Amino acid sequence: MMQTRITKLFNIQYPIVQAGMIWTSGWKLAAAAAKAGALGLIGAGSMHPDNLRHHIQSAKQALAGTKGVFGVNVPLLYPQISEIMGIIMDEGVRVVFTSAGSPAAWTKPLQAAGCKVVHVTASTKFACKARDAGCDAVVAEGFEAGGHNGREETTTLVLIPLVVEAVGEDIPVIAAGGIGTGSQMAAALALGAEGVQVGSRFAATQEASCHPAFKTRIVAAQEGDTVLALKKTVPVRLLRNEFQQAVLAAEARGANNEELNTLLGKGRAKRGMFEGDLIEGELEIGQVAAAIHDIPTADTVVHRLMTDCQATLMRLVKWTV
Amino acid sequence: MMQTRITKLFNIQYPIVQAGMIWTSGWKLAAAAAKAGALGLIGAGSMHPDNLRHHIQSAKQALAGTKGVFGVNVPLLYPQISEIMGIIMDEGVRVVFTSAGSPAAWTKPLQAAGCKVVHVTASTKFACKARDAGCDAVVAEGFEAGGHNGREETTTLVLIPLVVEAVGEDIPVIAAGGIGTGSQMAAALALGAEGVQVGSRFAATQEASCHPAFKTRIVAAQEGDTVLALKKTVPVRLLRNEFQQAVLAAEARGANNEELNTLLGKGRAKRGMFEGDLIEGELEIGQVAAAIHDIPTADTVVHRLMTDCQATLMRLVKWTV
Repeated sequence: MMQTRITKLFNIQYPIVQAGMIWTSGWKLAAAAAKAGALGLIGAGSMHPDNLRHHIQSAKQALAGTKGVFGVNVPLLYPQISEIMGIIMDEGVRVVFTSAGSPAAWTKPLQAAGCKVVHVTASTKFACKARDAGCDAVVAEGFEAGGHNGREETTTLVLIPLVVEAVGEDIPVIAAGGIGTGSQMAAALALGAEGVQVGSRFAATQEASCHPAFKTRIVAAQEGDTVLALKKTVPVRLLRNEFQQAVLAAEARGANNEELNTLLGKGRAKRGMFEGDLIEGELEIGQVAAAIHDIPTADTVVHRLMTDCQATLMRLVKWTV
Repeated sequence: MMQTRITKLFNIQYPIVQAGMIWTSGWKLAAAAAKAGALGLIGAGSMHPDNLRHHIQSAKQALAGTKGVFGVNVPLLYPQISEIMGIIMDEGVRVVFTSAGSPAAWTKPLQAAGCKVVHVTASTKFACKARDAGCDAVVAEGFEAGGHNGREETTTLVLIPLVVEAVGEDIPVIAAGGIGTGSQMAAALALGAEGVQVGSRFAATQEASCHPAFKTRIVAAQEGDTVLALKKTVPVRLLRNEFQQAVLAAEARGANNEELNTLLGKGRAKRGMFEGDLIEGELEIGQVAAAIHDIPTADTVVHRLMTDCQATLMRLVKWTV
C-alpha cells in the first residue's frame, strides 16, 4: 500500500501516472497501465477528434468491470480544442491532464462535468497558475523529460521541491522527467512529490502504439543521445538521428525561427514515432531512455516500479535510526 | 549516524562533501565544513601555488586537535599541475578531488603518498575511466550543477543510477548537482549515491571566500536564472547578468570559438565571484540557487542538511510497510 493524495484523487492503487504521449499512448497502453493499478492516459495530441472518441470508447470497454482508471492528456493549443473537450465530457471521462497552454479556460468546465483536472507545468510560476485556476493537482516536469518542455531547463531534482513548497499545501504534486525506475520514483517521493508521471519507460512497452522500430531505438539509446532542441520555437527533447543533428547544426549557425520551422516541416513526429523512420523522423524521448533495456508489458513496468521503489525505501530505513 | 562507504573512506561524520569552488572554497570554508562533520575541500583552481600552500597550512592549523577532515580539489588542466601536486603531497593532504582532465596520471602517485583520490565526472563513461584509473570514489555531477560541467547534459536524477550501476560495486558514488537541501540529499541516497557533494549551498555561507555581493546575488536568484553556456568551448553554468546575456546572444547568432573566447577574456570569474562585479563578472552557480534564501554558517548548512534528510527518510518510512 502506498497511499498519497494522488492515489486518493484518482482512486488508483499506485501513485503512478502513465504519461499521455503522442503517437504512443493509445487505448491499449492506457488500459494496460490502468489494469496494472496506475492511472492510464490516452494522449490526444496526435489524434483527430473521431479517433480520440474511438480510443476513449475502447479504453472504457477494456476496463469495464475492472478497477482500472484512465484519463486523457490534452494539449490546450490544439486547434479543435472545443470539439476535443466536448467529446471528453460527452464520453464521461473522469480525468483530464492539460498541457501546453493556459489552464484558466478549461479547468472549471471540465470539473463541472465531473472531471479531475491536472495541469502539466515546467516551472513554479506556471504551477501556481494551475493551482490558481483550480486544478486538482499539478505535474511538475523537469528538463530531462522527453517531448515538449519548458525553456527554463530546471531539472526534476531542483524543480520538485520548489513546486511543492509553492503549491504543496493546496494541491498534490506529480513529478515527471527522468523517472523510469523504482529508485527514481523513490527519489521523487523524497522530494515531496505524491506521484510520478512516467513516459519513456511506458513508450518502450508491448502495448504502446508507437512503431516497433522506435521502441528498439529507445532500448539502444545511450547517455547523451537526447538533446532539448528548438528552444527558440517549441522546445522539445529529441533523440539523436539525422534530423536531430540537422536541427542542432541549424541552431549552432544561428538559424532563425523561419528556417527552423521549415526544417521541422509537417508530420515529422508521426513519421518518426508512428511510422518508424529512425533517420528523418522526429523521435521524442527522455534522458532516462539510457536506462531502458527491454520492451516488457505495461503491467511489468508498473510492478517493477513498485517493487524497486519499495526496495529502495527499505534500503533507506537503516539511516532513520 | 549515517554510515556509508564514503563516511568510512574519509573518516567523516556525515556523507557530505563541501565542494571545492574557485574563488569561494578557501581554508575558512573547508575548515568550518570539516569541523561540522562534513569533508571540507579547498578549491585549488583559483589559487597560485604559494597561496594554495597557505590555505592548506591554515586549514591544518584550524583543524588541529579536532576530528575534522579536509582535502583539496584540483582541476588537472592547471598549467602548474606538478607544482600543485608537489605541495599537496609535501603538506601531507589526505584527500584529493581531481576534475577537468584525465585521472590516469595522478591517481597512483597521490595514493602512494597516502591520499584518497576521487575524480569528478559528468558521465558514466568517464566514471568508468576514473574507476579503471584506481580512484577510491567518483563524483557524478549532473547538468544542474554550477560551474564547469559536461556537454552531455545528463541530469543528476538520470546520471546517478547509471553511474552506480556501472561502477557502484567497485567504488562508492558521490552525487553532485542540484543538492542544497536535506530532501535532495535523501533523493540522492535513494538513487544509490553514498554521499553528496554540495556546492552552491556552501557558496552562500558566512565562511565562503567569495564576495558578499555575490552571496547576496545567489540568495536573490530565481528559477531559470542560470544557463549552461559556452558548450562549444568550456561548458559552464552561469548566473544571469549582462555578461551571461552577452554570451547567450553571441551563441544564438552562431559565434565561433574565437569570438566566444574573446568575449570571455581573462579574469572574468575573479571579477565576478571574488571582486563582486555582478554585471560584467562571471558568476558560477547551480540551479539550486533558486532554493537558497539565506547566508548562514557552514555548520548550520551541514546540520540543516542532516536534520532535513533524516526527516525526509522518516517521512518515507510509512510507505515501507
